Amino acid sequence: MTSTPPLVFLSCGGTIEKIYQPNTGQLTFNESHISDWVKQFRISQPVTVEVVMLIDSLEMTDTHREALANSVAASQGHQIVILHGTDTMVESAKRVMLQCRDDQTIVFTGAMVPASQAQSDAFFNIGLATGAAQTLPPGVYIAMSGQIFPADGVQKNKTLGRFESTESDNETLRITKRKQTAGFR
Amino acid sequence: MTSTPPLVFLSCGGTIEKIYQPNTGQLTFNESHISDWVKQFRISQPVTVEVVMLIDSLEMTDTHREALANSVAASQGHQIVILHGTDTMVESAKRVMLQCRDDQTIVFTGAMVPASQAQSDAFFNIGLATGAAQTLPPGVYIAMSGQIFPADGVQKNKTLGRFESTESDNETLRITKRKQTAGFR
Amino acid sequence: MTSTPPLVFLSCGGTIEKIYQPNTGQLTFNESHISDWVKQFRISQPVTVEVVMLIDSLEMTDTHREALANSVAASQGHQIVILHGTDTMVESAKRVMLQCRDDQTIVFTGAMVPASQAQSDAFFNIGLATGAAQTLPPGVYIAMSGQIFPADGVQKNKTLGRFESTESDNETLRITKRKQTAGFR
Amino acid sequence: MTSTPPLVFLSCGGTIEKIYQPNTGQLTFNESHISDWVKQFRISQPVTVEVVMLIDSLEMTDTHREALANSVAASQGHQIVILHGTDTMVESAKRVMLQCRDDQTIVFTGAMVPASQAQSDAFFNIGLATGAAQTLPPGVYIAMSGQIFPADGVQKNKTLGRFESTESDNETLRITKRKQTAGFR
Repeated sequence: MTSTPPLVFLSCGGTIEKIYQPNTGQLTFNESHISDWVKQFRISQPVTVEVVMLIDSLEMTDTHREALANSVAASQGHQIVILHGTDTMVESAKRVMLQCRDDQTIVFTGAMVPASQAQSDAFFNIGLATGAAQTLPPGVYIAMSGQIFPADGVQKNKTLGRFESTESDNETLRITKRKQTAGFR
Repeated sequence: MTSTPPLVFLSCGGTIEKIYQPNTGQLTFNESHISDWVKQFRISQPVTVEVVMLIDSLEMTDTHREALANSVAASQGHQIVILHGTDTMVESAKRVMLQCRDDQTIVFTGAMVPASQAQSDAFFNIGLATGAAQTLPPGVYIAMSGQIFPADGVQKNKTLGRFESTESDNETLRITKRKQTAGFR
Repeated sequence: MTSTPPLVFLSCGGTIEKIYQPNTGQLTFNESHISDWVKQFRISQPVTVEVVMLIDSLEMTDTHREALANSVAASQGHQIVILHGTDTMVESAKRVMLQCRDDQTIVFTGAMVPASQAQSDAFFNIGLATGAAQTLPPGVYIAMSGQIFPADGVQKNKTLGRFESTESDNETLRITKRKQTAGFR
Repeated sequence: MTSTPPLVFLSCGGTIEKIYQPNTGQLTFNESHISDWVKQFRISQPVTVEVVMLIDSLEMTDTHREALANSVAASQGHQIVILHGTDTMVESAKRVMLQCRDDQTIVFTGAMVPASQAQSDAFFNIGLATGAAQTLPPGVYIAMSGQIFPADGVQKNKTLGRFESTESDNETLRITKRKQTAGFR
C-alpha cells in the first residue's frame, strides 16, 4: 500500500519571487518564499518544495532549462507547480515537455507583479496553477492571465502584458468540448 | 455563432471580504472587493461579477440560500466561482446542487484569514477555485485548504481550521484513479 | 563620563498593537510588535523596549495605571514614548504626570487603525511621538491626530475620531507663548 | 486677527515615493502619494501639500535645488516637512538654508525603503519630521535614522545605510546646550 505522492512546488525565481533590497534599491532575489507561501495558503495535503534556481527568466540558458527538466523528471510528484519568470516561461515549458513522465501534470505560473508588491497577481496565479495541477490530465500547462493553456498553444503578449492562446477560436472551442465530454464524475 | 459565456464570480461575503472599520474597531463588511480583485488578478477572459449578499455565513438562513441558488441558476455562466463564509459553505453548496443547471461547474471558496489581513489564504483560494471551475466537469465543488472537494464529500474541521474529505482514503483513491484515466488531451 | 540614556519605548497595547487571530476571527493581542518596529524604523541611537501590558485601554484599572507610572518612574530614560489605547490615553497620561521625574519627556501615542491594517496611522504616530520626545522640554504629552498636546490640555473627540485641545484658541496661544520662553532641553 | 498658517508638506520624490511599475518592472515614480498619506495619518490641523518635483535625488541639479529653495521661501507655512531622496538630502538642505525665512522650521526626511514596500521606514520618518517641525525653533533640519540633526551637522553614511552627526560627541553636547538656552517657538 503506497502513500499519495505529494503536491510539488518547484521555484525557478522570476518576477514573482523578487523583493526589495535596501542595499541596492533594486527588486531582486534574496531567497525563495515558496515555503512561507505554502504555509500561508493553508494547504493541508502533503507538499514538497524545491528551489531549482532563483534567476530572472531572461537570463536562463539551455543549461538552466536542462537542470529544470531534470528536476521535474526526477520528482516523485504527479502534480507539479513551477514558479518561473514570464518572459521565457513558454520556452521552459516546451523544454520540460520533452522529458517529463507521462504520469505528471505540470503547471507553470508566475506573476506580472511581484508577490512582495501591492496589487500583485502572484497568489491568485499560484492558486490557479494548483487547481489545474490537481484536475488536469498529465501534460504541461501554463496558468496565467486567469486561464490555463497547453504549453504548446500559448504565447506571452508583451504589449498587452498577458498570456494568450496561439490557436484560433474554433480550435479552442473544439478542445473545450472534448474536455466537457471526458469528465470524471 | 455564440460568444463564450463569461467566467462568473458571485460574492456572498464571509471572512474573505471582511475589512477593518475604524468607527467600530471591528472587522466587518463595507462593500465587496471582488471587482477590484479581478482587476488585480489580471484575468483576461470576459468576467461577470455579482454581489448576492455580504454577510457572515453563520447568519445565513434558508431564504439567503434560496436567493443564492436562484442567482446561480439564473446566471448565463458555465464556470462559476462563489465567495462564501467557511462556516456554512458546505450547507450552501449542497443547496445550490439541488437547483443548478447541468452545464454549470460551480466552485465555492472563501478564506480562513480575510484578504485584508497579512498572511491571508484568500487570493490563493480564489485562484484555486478559478482553476477548478475551468477544468472540472459540471457539478458543485469546494476549493479550500489547497484541495478541491465535491460538495457532498467535504466538511469543515473547526478544530484544525481546515476542510477535509468525508470519504475514506480508499474511496478518495478510487476517484483519483477514475480522474486520471478520463483525461482530455 | 556617562553614556547617553537610551530612547525608551513602553507598550501598553491598545488598538495600535492589535492583530488578526485566525482561531477566533478577532483583532486582539498576541505579542508586542514594538521591537520589530524599532528595527523597521532604522533607529540608530540606543533604544530600550519594555512591554508593560498588552490590553485594551477600556479595560485598564487604577492598578494598571499605577504599574505604568511605576515603570516610567523607574526607567533610566529621559525620552520616553508610550504606546497606549486611545480611549483612556488621557487618563493614563495624567496619572503618569503625578509620578514622573522632572528630567523626563514622556509622549503617549497610539492609533485609530491598528498597525496591522491598511491605511493605519500607527507608524506616523510613533514617529510623531519620537520626534516630540527628543525635542520638547520635560513633561507629559500626547501625540495624536498630527499634533502634540500637553497631557492636561487634550481630549479624545469620539464622534470625530480625533484628539483635540481642551483649551480655547486664545488659551492655546498663551500657552504656546509660555512654551517659547521656557526653552527645551 | 490671523488664522494659523498651515502645516506644509513639500515632495521632491526620492526613494520614499517610489512604487512598482508593471510595464517596466522597475521601482520608480508615477505620482506623489503625499496627499493620500496625509489623509491616512489622520492629521487634523490645516495642511498644505505641494509636489515640487518627483525625481531620484542623484539626478538633482543646482536648478532643481533652486526651484525647491524658491518654493520654500514662497510658502506661507512656518512648519515645513520636505520629502526628499536620501543621497543628496544634506546638499539640498544646505541650499534651502541660504534662502529660507527666519520664521520657518524646515525638516527634510525620506526613506531607506520606499513607502510602497514591506518593512519601510517611510511613515515613521514623516511622523518624526512632523513632530520636529512643530517643536523645534526656526532652522533647517534632517529627520532620519530616528534622530533629528541640524542640516549643517549631518552626513549620510552609505556603508551603514544611515544618517549620523558630523560633529564629535563633545561638540554635540555643546550644541545641545546652546539649543537649550535658545528656546523654541
